[in-house]
Amino acid sequence: MTFITPTLHTEWGSVSTTSTADPIKGYPFGNIMSISDGPVDRASGTPYAYITRMDLTGKDLLTDTRATLSISEAQSDYCQKHDLDPEDPRCARILLTGNMVEVKNGTSEAEFAKAALFSRHPVMETWPADHNWIFVKLNIKHIYVLDFFGGASEVDVMDYYNAEL
Amino acid sequence: MTFITPTLHTEWGSVSTTSTADPIKGYPFGNIMSISDGPVDRASGTPYAYITRMDLTGKDLLTDTRATLSISEAQSDYCQKHDLDPEDPRCARILLTGNMVEVKNGTSEAEFAKAALFSRHPVMETWPADHNWIFVKLNIKHIYVLDFFGGASEVDVMDYYNAEL
Repeated sequence: MTFITPTLHTEWGSVSTTSTADPIKGYPFGNIMSISDGPVDRASGTPYAYITRMDLTGKDLLTDTRATLSISEAQSDYCQKHDLDPEDPRCARILLTGNMVEVKNGTSEAEFAKAALFSRHPVMETWPADHNWIFVKLNIKHIYVLDFFGGASEVDVMDYYNAEL
Repeated sequence: MTFITPTLHTEWGSVSTTSTADPIKGYPFGNIMSISDGPVDRASGTPYAYITRMDLTGKDLLTDTRATLSISEAQSDYCQKHDLDPEDPRCARILLTGNMVEVKNGTSEAEFAKAALFSRHPVMETWPADHNWIFVKLNIKHIYVLDFFGGASEVDVMDYYNAEL
């Protein structure tokens, strides 16, 4: 499955969490997160990220792992070039909902997450060590794809992982 | 205040809501929404949108108005051109949290919302009438701005509305 990070424009997504910040506690919160589902030649379909509790979204996730990752073609020039409004369903988007959980250090998955992220976001290697970064992954529970009129399609998670592109 | 929709790239945002869809009920959900805070020469600072209950996010909002609208410079070419990772705080973003509520038809505010949206998203005029579109606005309760290292800044809502650009 290479849907997630085939281009520069999908090396990030919008992440929705439940806010733990006092003034807006319990409100749905949204932020930007750099992601990768694998090095360019080994896309896995699972979005990985590199987070810290010093970040608003990191704090939220380390309290409540429920999250949605949204990726839209509006992030690239595609929709504008094709005269598609960002909200037009043909300006396609994928909405991945699930639980964003820590990938334990020292596991082979942590090595994969590191290769996935650092190969596509090389600057991450230089991020300040005292921020206590951890690798996380989205355990996908539910998938919506909007790519045409008639409402969102639900895509079976197994079908998503078995897709050959 | 013209921060929100000065360019094509900020004519949309990511909207976080609390999902009402059965498989992911209660999960934070994220989607894309076309927005406008006014015609080009009359930006108001208040984000308006045009939604329908037939849309996932519309359904969520009409059940629970709590929402966050996230707008990032990563939506344009700016961060890539300046070699800033999407998660780098200098790849600036504004995160507006509040309640997204209906603007009643027949009011002068509904006229403003219509002018704001239809002037910047002209295709909206052609969207299918049987979808029962309504104008909504985000009543901003809390603002985070990330634009440099050291964590998000909270911006007072009154200061936001009084900013002269």
